[in-house]
This record gives sequence, structure tokens and C-alpha cells, in this order.
Amino acid sequence: MADLVVVGSVALDTVTTPFGAVTEALGGAATYFSYSASFFTQVRLVGTVGEDFPSEHLDLLRHRHVDLAGLQISKGRTFRWTGEYGYDLNEAKTLDTQLNVFADFKPALPEAYKAAPFLFLANIDPVLQLDVRRQMTRTDLVALDTMNFWIQGKRDDLLRALAEVDALLINDAEARQLAGEPNLVKAARAILRLGPRTIVVKRGEYGALMLSEDEVFFVPAYPLESVFDPTGAGDTFAGGFMGYLSSQGKVDRQSVRRAIVYGSVMASFTVEDFSLDRLKRLTPEDVQRRYGAFHDLVRVDL
Amino acid sequence: MADLVVVGSVALDTVTTPFGAVTEALGGAATYFSYSASFFTQVRLVGTVGEDFPSEHLDLLRHRHVDLAGLQISKGRTFRWTGEYGYDLNEAKTLDTQLNVFADFKPALPEAYKAAPFLFLANIDPVLQLDVRRQMTRTDLVALDTMNFWIQGKRDDLLRALAEVDALLINDAEARQLAGEPNLVKAARAILRLGPRTIVVKRGEYGALMLSEDEVFFVPAYPLESVFDPTGAGDTFAGGFMGYLSSQGKVDRQSVRRAIVYGSVMASFTVEDFSLDRLKRLTPEDVQRRYGAFHDLVRVDL
Repeated sequence: MADLVVVGSVALDTVTTPFGAVTEALGGAATYFSYSASFFTQVRLVGTVGEDFPSEHLDLLRHRHVDLAGLQISKGRTFRWTGEYGYDLNEAKTLDTQLNVFADFKPALPEAYKAAPFLFLANIDPVLQLDVRRQMTRTDLVALDTMNFWIQGKRDDLLRALAEVDALLINDAEARQLAGEPNLVKAARAILRLGPRTIVVKRGEYGALMLSEDEVFFVPAYPLESVFDPTGAGDTFAGGFMGYLSSQGKVDRQSVRRAIVYGSVMASFTVEDFSLDRLKRLTPEDVQRRYGAFHDLVRVDL
Repeated sequence: MADLVVVGSVALDTVTTPFGAVTEALGGAATYFSYSASFFTQVRLVGTVGEDFPSEHLDLLRHRHVDLAGLQISKGRTFRWTGEYGYDLNEAKTLDTQLNVFADFKPALPEAYKAAPFLFLANIDPVLQLDVRRQMTRTDLVALDTMNFWIQGKRDDLLRALAEVDALLINDAEARQLAGEPNLVKAARAILRLGPRTIVVKRGEYGALMLSEDEVFFVPAYPLESVFDPTGAGDTFAGGFMGYLSSQGKVDRQSVRRAIVYGSVMASFTVEDFSLDRLKRLTPEDVQRRYGAFHDLVRVDL
């Protein structure tokens, strides 16, 4: 087992879906990621919250043995996001974003973090992503997530960050946007020339596709009867993916495939309830059972 | 190997996509289905064309040993469809439909067809589908395809037909529409109560999902670098699916899974060119090679 560092947002989310709503619930990419990865490995979180951040949320992460030494409590209010989804749960409509303490965030990594071999740069300003990446002294695997906002607004910074990572996790519309190419496979091939050796394309209810120079791998999303809130699914996926790889301490071909299945397993739970509510009730046995169900879902004897 | 009967349209299609266009090219559900299934089994076609139908198209099907005894050459013009696709190749926009000889089509099955154990009712008026289904004397597997036009306009007739088939092949929007339920898994469960024991949901570039009372199975679409024209993909899928099952002469669990992979394999070729142009160049070796590639695409050692 190897340590896993994540940098990203810790937030309070207000979310409405056709199936309900929550106000100022625990959210943020680094939160979903850490909770998910904590099922597999030692996670160390880098981020910031305001003085208004409920201590029960911190206790929740501590209870999962997530190291919060890198979480700064800053003067001011916690980052807040408000969004809503229609019946097509694939895309959120952002109604409001308040960066608050995240506006002036300067990540400073505790010494204990710097030698961790696994690093996840969740979706934040690519300037910060590169800054954190360069504070690390050794890395077996660095993965990065991003979004349309940075692809459009900070493209050059994003390209600089991409040149120094091993894997990119991205959704399909963003992959097409980044490459300027409507065909997803061609888009992924173009992105491989920008630096990452591996691209994992997250396709929401349609699963995840991994592409590298000489390999293509696909995992479906688990077909669920009840999807309440897709918020955090991609970050939970990343947590399962990076968490499993960290637990193995290696990045060989079969481990990467299993890691993508574990990512899909973890994401399939998150969407079954609002915020981290389903994850909070999750047991390691639930995870293993659904991991088996994923195999049954695609298994064909030749 | 068991015989396979298909009833459906034989057409001349005029199609525009961002990658090119064809005018009055060979098309129609029964055409794509038959050509695809001919790689696996003896196909017998039921349908009609007008006197204007180019004889070279008939020769093409005869060359694949498709039995055309059930294809009526009627007075008048062949069925014509005109459609176009945007960069999102998932949905066609129909610009024009001329039923022509199909308007008065009365399927009459040759005696040699009636004892075939496998039957595919391609997307036509559900009244005709039920008529053909009842002309068959023994059937191991009857599968039906339909579309939004019939779900909305001839719902009662469609429900009567559904009550007498074993499998429904349908796309995801149509499954939701038929069941009146936005969640795909719940929609499929509702449809299972209408008659079919098996539902195969076709999701275009997102693959195919099979649901039955006690099983869920998923096959991705093959990630292609070049998709030119999705016309006929669903019917080609159905041809591979039913063709393979007919070749095995049985409908057990593993055969059904393999059949869905073969359906996906055949569909993945169709979209690589306009009309049946890619299928015309296809060899059995191409089919087997891509069948292997599908396994590589999803294979994970537990």
C-alpha cells in the first residue's frame, strides 16, 4: 500500500434533482475523492475550507483515516456550489459558484505528503495543479481532472500541467473540446500526444473508456434502478481508481483495468443518494459484492 | 443451424452525414438484417419492393444465399427514406418518407418459411408484425423491433404483438417512451411484464444492454476512429444477434451473451461506411477478429 495525495475542493453544495434537494450539504471534489479512496488506502488531503465549515464533516473524513494536515482552515467562508439536474442526469446546470476561501488558495504541502507516490490533481486551476505536482518529490502516478472552464479559459496553463502528468481523467464532452475533435477515439489519441500516457474518459451513465498508446478498455456504468444525484460521481470514480492503484502500489495493465472497475463501483454508490449519504452507509462488503456484479455484467465465455 | 425469417423494409435511402452523402442507396431494415445474419445462418426474407428496384441489389442478397422467395415485386415504386445526421450521430432527422409499395403490403409467407424456428419482426406496423408471427407454425425465438412512431400511434396493436414475442430490441429513448418511465432499468422491468422475456436496449455509440427477469448484461459499442453513417446499425445488430442464435440453434444464457457481442461486432462495421458498403467488403475473418477485440475491450481478471 502506498500513500495517495489529493488536492481539490472541499465544498458545501446546494443541489436540486427531480428526486429531491439538499442545502449546503457536504461536497467538493477532494471530499468525494478522499472518502472513496479511503476504502483502499491512506489518503492525504490538500485543500481549504472557511471558518464556517461544520466540524462534523471533518470528523467524518478523520473517521475514514483521511489525513487532514494539508487542509487549511482559512479566514472567511467555505467554497459553495449550487446546481440542478433535469431528468437527464448527465449534466448539471450551475446556478451559483462562490469561491470564497478558494479564491486565494495557495496549496502548501506538509512534508509528510511530499514523498507520496500517488497524486490526484482534482479539478482546480491548472496553475495550482502544476504547483502541487512540483512540490512532490517522487511520483509513481500523477492523475489530473479538469473541466470546460479551464480548457477554455486557461488552456496554456492546462497544457503545461498536462505535460507533467501520467493520466488524465475527463468527461467525453471535455475530451472533444480539449482536442477540438468530435470523434472520441481520435480526440483521445490527440490528447495522448499532450503528455498523459493514459486517458480515462468518464461518460456518466454510459460508463468509462480508457485509452493508451496500445490499449482500449471499457467499463459500463452499473445499471441502477434509482439514481438520485450524480454530483460527485466523477470524483468518487477517481477515488476508487487511484485508491485501488495505491493499495496495489503498482500501475501494471491488469491493475489499471481493475482500478477502473473499482472506480465505477464506487461511483455507482454515490449516485444512489444525495451528497455522501450513500457512501457513509457503505461497507467493504458492499464494494466487493458490486465489484463481482460488474464482472457478471460483462462476462462472456469466448 | 436453424432457419431465420425476417420481415421488414427493403428501401432506397438518401442519407447525409457530416462525412458525406448517398442518394437512393440500398437500405431498409430487412436488408441490413439479412446481409448481417447471412454471415451466420440461412436467412429467408419477407418484404416488398417496387418494379424500379435495381436488380443488382437483389443479386447482392442472393450472393449471400438470402432466400428471396418471400420478397414481393409489387407494381409501383420502392419504399424511400431520406434522412440526415449532425455531428451527434446518435439520432437521424427524417426529411422524407415515401411508403410507396409498402403502403399496401400484405405479407404472405412461402410454405418453406413457416416452420423456421427463428423469426425477426423488423420495425414495421405492429399489425403486420403480429400477422407474420401468427403465420409461423413453430418458433424457438421471436424478436421484435419497433420505433416511436408505432409506440405513439399504434400502441394497442403494438402491445398485442409484444404479448406474443420472446425478445424486444429497442433503443433507449423508445424503451423509456413505451414504459412511460425515465429510468432505463425500471422501464425495462416494466416492459418485461408486457410479454417479452428478454429486452435488448440499443444505445448507439454507448453499446447495448440486455435485461431479463434475473440477468443484466452489457456490451459497449466498439470505439471507432471513423464513423461515417449510423443508418442500419440497429438492424445490422439484430442480424448478428439473431443470426448467431440461429447458427447455434439454441437460446441458452451464454449463447444470448455471445449473440449480443456478435450483434455489436456487425453493427460496428456498418457504421464505418455508407449503406451496406462496409458489409460488402466484410469477411468472416474480419468478424472473428473484431469479436476477439470486443473481449479484449472488457476483459478484467478478477
